[in-house]
Amino acid sequence: MSKRVIVIGAVALGPKAASRFKRLDPSAEVTMLDRHTYISFGGCGIPYYISAEVDSLDALRATPYGTVRTPEFFRDRKGITVRNRTEALSIDRQAHTVRVRDLQSGAEEDLPYDKLVIATGSTPKMPPVEGRDLGNVFGVTTLENARDVREACASGKVRNAVIIGGGFIGLEVCVALADMWGIHTSVVEFMPQILSGVLSPNLAAMAEHDLRSHKVDVFTSEKVLRVEGENGVARRVVTDKRTLDADLVIFATGFAPNTELARKAGLDIDPASKAILVNEFMQTSDPDIYAGGDCVATPNLITGKPFCLALGSLANRQGRVIGTNLAADQPVATFRGAVGSWGVKLFGLSLCGTGLTEDRARAAGFDAISAGIEQMDRAHFYPEKHMMSLEVTVDRATRRVLGLQGACEAGDALKARIDAAATMLQFGQPTVDDLANAEVVYAPPFASALDTINAVANAADNVLAGRMKPVSGRAFAELWEKRAENNVYFIDSRPAAAAKALAAKHPGEWHAVPLEEVDECLADIPRDRPVAAVCNTGLRSYEVNLHLRRNGIDNVISVQGGMQSLLKQGKEIR
Amino acid sequence: MSKRVIVIGAVALGPKAASRFKRLDPSAEVTMLDRHTYISFGGCGIPYYISAEVDSLDALRATPYGTVRTPEFFRDRKGITVRNRTEALSIDRQAHTVRVRDLQSGAEEDLPYDKLVIATGSTPKMPPVEGRDLGNVFGVTTLENARDVREACASGKVRNAVIIGGGFIGLEVCVALADMWGIHTSVVEFMPQILSGVLSPNLAAMAEHDLRSHKVDVFTSEKVLRVEGENGVARRVVTDKRTLDADLVIFATGFAPNTELARKAGLDIDPASKAILVNEFMQTSDPDIYAGGDCVATPNLITGKPFCLALGSLANRQGRVIGTNLAADQPVATFRGAVGSWGVKLFGLSLCGTGLTEDRARAAGFDAISAGIEQMDRAHFYPEKHMMSLEVTVDRATRRVLGLQGACEAGDALKARIDAAATMLQFGQPTVDDLANAEVVYAPPFASALDTINAVANAADNVLAGRMKPVSGRAFAELWEKRAENNVYFIDSRPAAAAKALAAKHPGEWHAVPLEEVDECLADIPRDRPVAAVCNTGLRSYEVNLHLRRNGIDNVISVQGGMQSLLKQGKEIR
Repeated sequence: MSKRVIVIGAVALGPKAASRFKRLDPSAEVTMLDRHTYISFGGCGIPYYISAEVDSLDALRATPYGTVRTPEFFRDRKGITVRNRTEALSIDRQAHTVRVRDLQSGAEEDLPYDKLVIATGSTPKMPPVEGRDLGNVFGVTTLENARDVREACASGKVRNAVIIGGGFIGLEVCVALADMWGIHTSVVEFMPQILSGVLSPNLAAMAEHDLRSHKVDVFTSEKVLRVEGENGVARRVVTDKRTLDADLVIFATGFAPNTELARKAGLDIDPASKAILVNEFMQTSDPDIYAGGDCVATPNLITGKPFCLALGSLANRQGRVIGTNLAADQPVATFRGAVGSWGVKLFGLSLCGTGLTEDRARAAGFDAISAGIEQMDRAHFYPEKHMMSLEVTVDRATRRVLGLQGACEAGDALKARIDAAATMLQFGQPTVDDLANAEVVYAPPFASALDTINAVANAADNVLAGRMKPVSGRAFAELWEKRAENNVYFIDSRPAAAAKALAAKHPGEWHAVPLEEVDECLADIPRDRPVAAVCNTGLRSYEVNLHLRRNGIDNVISVQGGMQSLLKQGKEIR
Repeated sequence: MSKRVIVIGAVALGPKAASRFKRLDPSAEVTMLDRHTYISFGGCGIPYYISAEVDSLDALRATPYGTVRTPEFFRDRKGITVRNRTEALSIDRQAHTVRVRDLQSGAEEDLPYDKLVIATGSTPKMPPVEGRDLGNVFGVTTLENARDVREACASGKVRNAVIIGGGFIGLEVCVALADMWGIHTSVVEFMPQILSGVLSPNLAAMAEHDLRSHKVDVFTSEKVLRVEGENGVARRVVTDKRTLDADLVIFATGFAPNTELARKAGLDIDPASKAILVNEFMQTSDPDIYAGGDCVATPNLITGKPFCLALGSLANRQGRVIGTNLAADQPVATFRGAVGSWGVKLFGLSLCGTGLTEDRARAAGFDAISAGIEQMDRAHFYPEKHMMSLEVTVDRATRRVLGLQGACEAGDALKARIDAAATMLQFGQPTVDDLANAEVVYAPPFASALDTINAVANAADNVLAGRMKPVSGRAFAELWEKRAENNVYFIDSRPAAAAKALAAKHPGEWHAVPLEEVDECLADIPRDRPVAAVCNTGLRSYEVNLHLRRNGIDNVISVQGGMQSLLKQGKEIR
């Protein structure tokens, strides 16, 4: 008898698992259910549909060769039965049936299965804010949302938009609205920075500067209290600090895994992430039921604890594993876990990361430090190049690399560095020394002889060895701003012309100590005050710092990434 | 007493080792010797100086912050004594001295050392070809070469150039001459393809097409017999197949490690690579003598055997390890080995790779197969994107990934994929399944949900499982060309319009079998002939192939990368 498989959810993981399984076992009966009308779409493409860079909604539903993935496509081309607008109500694990309701007719029935796949995805978290049901207030997870938002933009009536939530999707939609539609857009983020949890405060300051320099207002540490409307349509967003005009309001406040069905069926749920627990074969606590994608908890290979990662890429990879296992007598394909790799392109700047930030690493129990650099992505003599910011998180005692994040105008070049670290993190417990010696593609159009990933590891090595006490560009800017309140002695190790010009503007506060003249300057540097050394990228100040230490001036901090780091944050010292 | 260290060779590894050591041990006495005038330069930048993209030779000798690295720079800024134009003649290991000769005065003396670093690099291999001493015949490894070649180009008298050797440097110089100076350039390569040993024949055909479509002549399997001149200056290159006009001739025929000094001192040499043997601390067989860079044999982490890798990046990383060990009582820093990662940018196309090609893997004793794809580097709905070719080498029995190479117009995007694989290869023995599940940065501006590295692993999985018998675009083009001599039945699985249009042009030879109509076509497909299925990128032909196999048509080959692969090789079927 042919195997009967039911797949609940037909967006990303569901179709992947179903198609892979059906290719391996063409005689099987596969039924895929979904509550919605549209199935099998690239939800990650929604911001690019909103911006009109992607022309039609169909493009998000199409195969790479242009066929739209309708229920008929799955029937005719894959031999898979799709029942859209059909809700799975409950699972009877004993009877091996799923109770379903046709959302158009209301009819209910029980569908039998041999193996079941739960691919119910996630639902946007909508904070209980008054006014969220007003017109022109949207989430951005369904194609219907996407259509509505783009229609609102195209109407020409939206002058001000407010995005609630400075995470990936919020920022992508922000760029779509501001850059492509010319709408004045504000981002309101509850946490003290955007991209909280995945990006260090220093790199987040660069991301925020990129937004602000493209006329986006960014309000962090700010709570949305309510949306106010007129005639049933949004007009204002009121936060705990201000009122913002808003003809369009987007909620992008994260996702919660859809686990109700699994929970009701008594399947194990991870108490921390509140997502479905699966083993390495992607089986739930019931071996006849697989689950994957946004609704499951994936082992974090760095912390060892499960976490939720709502990414279409993860769903695709897990879907293939499930498809393979559905076709085997005993599950064979495994999915070991993930480290949390991500990327987002803003206006000029791309941000990418993998693994843990310093803050997250500390929260996970590591004695973490971080080190950062600013270095060109290519050989410094090569004509086209971009300054790349990288920051590595390291466990102090074991020297283990826990994460790497960065910011660069060249997104692909940044992805290259993050991906090199991401795969290392997945296949071992690399140390700073491994990253320092990591061998990657080198030629002047691709990298400098010491790749940025090697350089950032060397910076971490210097920090761990106590040869350098780092301070981020962001923290340094704050020290300079509050120089009246602290006792810091600021020294500038850039070449004499630059250093002396700035010192002349701030007599007695800013001191030129060019690397070439450090010996002559030694006598002037006080030994009873903390010294902060800065140069253009951090290389010269590191050497000056070594020289000072050798001469008994120990209380020295060096600015990681130097003036370049400040520049990227819009915090130049003038 | 302060430690005395002598470094022989002051180009890449030498200065890195010396500077790192001196930073860690400022009291040490470090002397760096070099036969040449110019020291510490970025030799990899020579093609970009020749093209005038890099303005001055000084730019190749400068730090990222613009200081030219002269002997005085090392003296004043690093406390390192540099003796350029000074040759190391011999090493007396017992006495711990190096015999040196000042090349200007001819004076000789013995310099004592506690630790010695051999950083003698490599010398271009010049085949014993008549006429190689004529005017306008150059190598391209020294700054003097670079200056001479650029002067020749700038003279306006060079109409035709011949590059002997289709390796990295030969091709980079070829692009410089043809693209930036408009010189008609030919590449003559002794092997059957350019980039032999690092690139598969299929990807090499793409590289050659990129050159040819920019008016470069490429002659492979061709041997240079002599250079002919007039009035002492080159005029022609005579090969075993033709005579080429040549006002400028460049020899780029590889490198040999400079080991004479080490050999005379009785240090162990690797018999296969003929380079100096070092341990993981970069010590030679004499623990007081370190060596690194082009002159040493580095363990290949895939084959387990030492190999030579003449790359400035490797030299930099090894140099830092040596610097660290020089400063320690007992060596502490290690360099485990390399996998062979490389990149080269031609006109429109970049090529990158890591690990072994299928041919190299077989030569190393693996039962290797390869699998290839053509897939967009970004989400297929994202506006800016490039078709990426990737090819993975896999050991059949163990499923171990042995190498990955690719071709793409987006060089950084390609580097990202190769680097992700490169670091995996360094930190374990990843399988096809590991690569299929590798987690890398995903968002539509960076990748499609199934990254190209995941997709190429899935293709390899299908080949290993016997679900697909692949044929490269290059081999398919040959089958089609020789269709009168073989019995292959050609089927086109693209959408009906494209497939039928082409079939109409080649009645009885080319058969439209659109994926959507495969059932209707089944009866027409012969069961006694080999079938070759092609589509646009390989996805549809894979599915048609599965369908045929299920219907008893087993003798099917699928074109990896489909028509896109042919297109990139200039071999469209029209």
